[in-house]
Amino acid sequence: MKKLMLTTTLALSLMLLCCAPALAADPVKTLSGDITLAQAQKILAAALKKAEAIKVPMNIAIVDAGGNLKAFYRQEDAFIGSIDISIKKAVTARYFNMSTRTLGSVSQVGQPLYGIEASNDGLILFAGGVLLVDANNVIIGAIGVSGGSVDEDESVAMAGAAAIK
Amino acid sequence: MKKLMLTTTLALSLMLLCCAPALAADPVKTLSGDITLAQAQKILAAALKKAEAIKVPMNIAIVDAGGNLKAFYRQEDAFIGSIDISIKKAVTARYFNMSTRTLGSVSQVGQPLYGIEASNDGLILFAGGVLLVDANNVIIGAIGVSGGSVDEDESVAMAGAAAIK
Amino acid sequence: MKKLMLTTTLALSLMLLCCAPALAADPVKTLSGDITLAQAQKILAAALKKAEAIKVPMNIAIVDAGGNLKAFYRQEDAFIGSIDISIKKAVTARYFNMSTRTLGSVSQVGQPLYGIEASNDGLILFAGGVLLVDANNVIIGAIGVSGGSVDEDESVAMAGAAAIK
Amino acid sequence: MKKLMLTTTLALSLMLLCCAPALAADPVKTLSGDITLAQAQKILAAALKKAEAIKVPMNIAIVDAGGNLKAFYRQEDAFIGSIDISIKKAVTARYFNMSTRTLGSVSQVGQPLYGIEASNDGLILFAGGVLLVDANNVIIGAIGVSGGSVDEDESVAMAGAAAIK
Repeated sequence: MKKLMLTTTLALSLMLLCCAPALAADPVKTLSGDITLAQAQKILAAALKKAEAIKVPMNIAIVDAGGNLKAFYRQEDAFIGSIDISIKKAVTARYFNMSTRTLGSVSQVGQPLYGIEASNDGLILFAGGVLLVDANNVIIGAIGVSGGSVDEDESVAMAGAAAIK
Repeated sequence: MKKLMLTTTLALSLMLLCCAPALAADPVKTLSGDITLAQAQKILAAALKKAEAIKVPMNIAIVDAGGNLKAFYRQEDAFIGSIDISIKKAVTARYFNMSTRTLGSVSQVGQPLYGIEASNDGLILFAGGVLLVDANNVIIGAIGVSGGSVDEDESVAMAGAAAIK
Repeated sequence: MKKLMLTTTLALSLMLLCCAPALAADPVKTLSGDITLAQAQKILAAALKKAEAIKVPMNIAIVDAGGNLKAFYRQEDAFIGSIDISIKKAVTARYFNMSTRTLGSVSQVGQPLYGIEASNDGLILFAGGVLLVDANNVIIGAIGVSGGSVDEDESVAMAGAAAIK
Repeated sequence: MKKLMLTTTLALSLMLLCCAPALAADPVKTLSGDITLAQAQKILAAALKKAEAIKVPMNIAIVDAGGNLKAFYRQEDAFIGSIDISIKKAVTARYFNMSTRTLGSVSQVGQPLYGIEASNDGLILFAGGVLLVDANNVIIGAIGVSGGSVDEDESVAMAGAAAIK
């Protein structure tokens, strides 16, 4: 890829030399409006603050609009096993555009979606995964929190989500 | 694979040269009567029409008689998590030659097939997977739909399946 | 989810009744500019046309900007084993924002990225995966084609990608 | 887990009641000296600064002494496929207590460890994974960076690692 990068640099230099407006520019790589790292950091900070307030060490994961990991923090003493759960909670919320609490309520024994957790390499169906909706009312990703009771997890996720409203 | 193609081209050239009717022909690669892409497109069109009529964005997957993916569409705003579910619904229906609703009813807690979803890398046991039976009464594959309630999913799957009756 | 849908319908009816502009609207679920099903169908049609012209049956997969499957077609007699390869080619191209041919060239034995295919649950490093760049010069997904020689695969992918330029 | 928390709360209440200094305290959950979130944030900040200086968008992953994810950032436009690679680079470095560059050099075709990447659900054998050694000369984890050429990746990883020396 180094060679590739050098080629790109060379192409860029040539472009700057000629300033030809007709020259094909590098394509845009990220859809406009997707979550930024700055937004993710703001969400993480708000979630951490809540976790500290309730004194429960947490794993906090953020995915973008495509469901791909954007940022993650694990606090001291937070369960190692909750790394995967927090990420899966965020993915689950975005994959079905609802909180994991809501999805869970229709996936219990005897409910219509019972067994849905066998799909998508494993979903998490208890509270703690919440959508990230920006000030323009666009879903730009999701946050998943794991480390305490499901109510504690969800309260931390909601504190994070509120930071970009 | 290039070499393979060249060999095929060579064999074809020789065939054209000799025109010998006794020459061993390339073996037939697909079972007679298996679903065609044209049929799959017709099914997809009918399913899309129904999804638009009920205003629920859907994932629609079609597998052939061997249970292998033949065609797939995801509408705007359809759940990302339903890509996998729609495909698994189609696979599940064909793997057991019944609708996922029927299989689900005998796989609930306390029922004979309880736990079957752990097999085959994950089955889906709620409605939305339906067999594709052609005009000759032959099962040529299955359709799986996911995006709304399980009843909505199944209604779209049945609209698709009706297109080749 | 049926209950959920009914609740949503109820909420919607109430909204229409009051017409209160301050009422929270449903959040936007898809980032503006991501590939549409209509675009994917146009790309599939162009790719099919090319595959028919060169008489090689193909698997054709399209993923969106987030790398998630959007549409898929398998022609009669196309390799079953190429279902997975075509999807992985599309995913690989989008995951690294370059064609699988380019990524493959820097991942050969002795090259800097040798072994990269062990990541991401398996990448494909030979030609046939191509980026989908729209008329606004935005990457909106990728197309992966598998069924013939890698050059044939890539020519079909490029024919598809050209349909939305 | 809720029940678990309640039990903990109960135990805590009892402790407060008796104030007995001999009472068995909650066991310590994290090894003394393991990487803290504060250290991880410092490392991420230093790595980001370097990535911005060389103008290459990166995925940056940090694992603790146990090889488990501690923190992660993905910058805008950084490859989606590099999420997994950056994490695997960090894991690989800690699993073998050497940089991925060093491990890679002894794992090439014809070298002693050829094929090692098939272990551990996939290792990464090119530069960009670096050990995190603290001021007391203790390995407290590793950092993995992916997004540019392997030399660029490694320079960002080293900038991150230098922040806690």
